[in-house]
Amino acid sequence: MTEKNTDNTNKVPQPQGLRGQSAGVTALCTVGKTGTGLTYRGFDISDLATHATFEEVAYLLLRGKLPTQQELDDYQQRLLTMRELPAALKTVLENIPADAHPMDVMRTGCSVLGNLETELGFEQQADKTDRLLALFPAIICYWYRFSHDGVRIDSDNCQQTSIGGHFLEMLTGRQPSDLHVEVMQCSLVLYAEHEFNASTFTARVCASTLSDLHSCITAAIGSLRGPLHGGANEAAMDMLANWKTAEEAEQAILKMLETKEKIMGFGHAIYRESDPRNTLIKAWSEKLAEDADDPWLYEVSERVDEVMWREKKLFPNADFYHASAYHFMGIPTKLFTPIFVMSRLTGWAAHVFEQRENNRIIRPSADYIGPEHQDWVPIEQRK
Amino acid sequence: MTEKNTDNTNKVPQPQGLRGQSAGVTALCTVGKTGTGLTYRGFDISDLATHATFEEVAYLLLRGKLPTQQELDDYQQRLLTMRELPAALKTVLENIPADAHPMDVMRTGCSVLGNLETELGFEQQADKTDRLLALFPAIICYWYRFSHDGVRIDSDNCQQTSIGGHFLEMLTGRQPSDLHVEVMQCSLVLYAEHEFNASTFTARVCASTLSDLHSCITAAIGSLRGPLHGGANEAAMDMLANWKTAEEAEQAILKMLETKEKIMGFGHAIYRESDPRNTLIKAWSEKLAEDADDPWLYEVSERVDEVMWREKKLFPNADFYHASAYHFMGIPTKLFTPIFVMSRLTGWAAHVFEQRENNRIIRPSADYIGPEHQDWVPIEQRK
Repeated sequence: MTEKNTDNTNKVPQPQGLRGQSAGVTALCTVGKTGTGLTYRGFDISDLATHATFEEVAYLLLRGKLPTQQELDDYQQRLLTMRELPAALKTVLENIPADAHPMDVMRTGCSVLGNLETELGFEQQADKTDRLLALFPAIICYWYRFSHDGVRIDSDNCQQTSIGGHFLEMLTGRQPSDLHVEVMQCSLVLYAEHEFNASTFTARVCASTLSDLHSCITAAIGSLRGPLHGGANEAAMDMLANWKTAEEAEQAILKMLETKEKIMGFGHAIYRESDPRNTLIKAWSEKLAEDADDPWLYEVSERVDEVMWREKKLFPNADFYHASAYHFMGIPTKLFTPIFVMSRLTGWAAHVFEQRENNRIIRPSADYIGPEHQDWVPIEQRK
Repeated sequence: MTEKNTDNTNKVPQPQGLRGQSAGVTALCTVGKTGTGLTYRGFDISDLATHATFEEVAYLLLRGKLPTQQELDDYQQRLLTMRELPAALKTVLENIPADAHPMDVMRTGCSVLGNLETELGFEQQADKTDRLLALFPAIICYWYRFSHDGVRIDSDNCQQTSIGGHFLEMLTGRQPSDLHVEVMQCSLVLYAEHEFNASTFTARVCASTLSDLHSCITAAIGSLRGPLHGGANEAAMDMLANWKTAEEAEQAILKMLETKEKIMGFGHAIYRESDPRNTLIKAWSEKLAEDADDPWLYEVSERVDEVMWREKKLFPNADFYHASAYHFMGIPTKLFTPIFVMSRLTGWAAHVFEQRENNRIIRPSADYIGPEHQDWVPIEQRK
C-alpha cells in the first residue's frame, strides 16, 4: 500500500489530498493548536481522558455541553434502554461468515439499521445517534460470538452500564474488572473526535447532500476501514506479537529501519512532537501488563518506542500503546478497529449535525488530464 | 431541505463546499468544457448515448478504451455469468421491509456483498466492479418483488442480455419491448459519469484511505441518496403526477414560482445554458408517450419546460424528462434513484481506480469557530 501511495508517474501531478485547504468550519475540535494538542469543544483531551466517562464525552460532543450529574444519569439510562438488536438485524449478522472483515460487519450493521429504523427527518438525528451508540458494541459482538463460538448473545441482558463495559461483557461472556472498564472508558474518549480526518470528512461530504444519518455513518466506517486510516493499532499488534523480549524487538526494528519497512503506530500527519493521546493510553498499558499473561509485550513496546525516538525522532501516536492495552484485556486484534468505530461515531455524528446546520453541498473541481476530444469510431473499425 | 441549505446564521462563515477548488486530477470526464458539454474519456455524451450500449460505455470507463466487437461480446458474456445472487444476500434482502428506502436497500446490498465476496487486493478491483454491475439490478428487484409481491425472482434465469433489459425483465416478470431496452441503454449511458460530483467525491475520499471497493461504492450510494444529489427525477415525477393537462401544469408552476417553491429538474450547478443530456432523454420520453397509458405527462412536461424557460430562463437538466420516460416504462417512482446507482457505479469505480493509481489520503483542514479554551469543571459544579 505504501508503494501504491508513492507510485506517481512523471506525467501526472502529485496529489495533494486537500492538505492545508479548508473544507469548512467546525466548533468541535482542534488538533495541534492549543493545550496538549487536542481539544473537544475547547476541553483538553488530558482533562477529558482523566476525568470524564465516554458517555460524558459523547454528551459533550453531541449535545454541546458537559452534562450535569442528572443529565448524565438520564443519558446513561436512555442508552441502556436502546440495547436490543432488532430480530432482522440479528438474522443479517448470522448470515455473515466468520472470515468476514469485522469492519465490513460494522458497516453492514449500520446500513441495515438504516433500513429498519430510518431517520425520517433531521429532528431525529440525536435519537438515531444514541441508538447507534447503544448498538455498535452489540452488532460486532453478536456477529463475533455467533460466527466464532455459535453463541447468540443477549445484548439487552447485561450488567455493565457503560458502553465500554457492555462491549467487554458481551465479548467475553464474563463481568470485566473495574480496571478493564476504566481503560475502555479512556480509550473510547481518546478516539472520539479528531477534526476533518478522512472518515469524518467522508461523513460530512455525505451529509452535505442532506442524506440520512445512517448513510453518513456507514460511509465513514468504510473510510476508517482503509489501512491508511484506522487499523494502525491492529498493524502495531501484529508486529509486536512477533517478539518475546525487548532485545529481540530492538534488533528487529533496527533491521526494519535499515530495509525501510514501515513501522506502524509512529508519527502523525499533524502532531509534530508528540501525540497527546499517547501518554494517557501508555499509562494504562503499563498498568494492565501487571496482570497480563504476556507482560513482556509492554516492555517490547517500550523498547520499540525508545528505538524509534533514538533512531528516527519519531514518537508513538495514539495507536501504538493501544495495541498492547487492548491485547492485555483479551480483545482479539481484528476487533481493534471496530472499537474505534464505537468511539468515533460520536465525532462523526457531531460533524454531521454541524454540516446540516450550515450546509452547502461539497462538490470540488478536478484538473482534467485526459484526452481533449475523441471522434466516435464505429465498433467494426476499432482495433 | 432547501430552507436548511440557506439557513445560515450571521456568526458563521457561509460554507463554500469546496466550489471551484481542485481536489485532484481525472482523465475520466469533462463537464461544461468541450463539445456539447459532457465527455467521457474525451468522447462526447451525444455520440455515446446515440451509438453505444451501456456495457460499451462501462468498458470505456473501466478499461480505458472503447471495446472491439470481440471484446464487447466477451465482456457482455462475462457479466451474464455473474448474475446469481448469493443465498446469504437473498436472506438479507428478504429481511428488509417493503417500506424501506430503496437507496438503503442498494447501500445495504453492496455492503453485504463486501462481506461475502471481499476485495482482497486491488488486482481484484475490475472483477469486483463487474460483479456489482451484474448484481445491482438483481439486488433492487429481488427486494422489491419479494417485499411487494411475495415473489422470489431468479436473477440468473432471464432472457435479457443487457443490464437495462435485465432490470426491466426482473421488475415486471415480462420481456420488455426493444424500445424500452433502448431507452434504458440511453438512460444508463447518460447517468454513468459526471466528474467530481458529491457521491463520486465521497467514493474518492474513501478510496484515498486505501479502503476496499465495496466500502467506496457503499459510501457513494449513501451520498447519492441525499435530496440535493440523486432523487431529482423522483421529485420531478411526484410533481408532474399532480397534473392532467398542460394548462393545469402551467397555472400550478406559475403559482409555485410566485411562492418561490423549488421546482425540481431545472438548472445545474455547472452547465449554464443547457444540460447536454436533456435533448437525448427528452426525445425518448416523447417516443414513449405514444404508447403510454397517461401520454399527457409528456405534454405536461413540455409545458413546464416552456414556462420555466419563459419565466426564469431555466433549462431542464438530465433528471426532468427522465421522470416521464421512466414512468412511461412502468417503473415505480421510488426505483428511479436505484437506476442511477446501477449506472453511476461505472463512474464511481473508475474514479476509485484512478484515486488508487496516484493516491494521497484526502484530509483537508477546517476553520475552527468553537471556544478557545474551557477549564475542566467537576460534574457536581456544573449547571
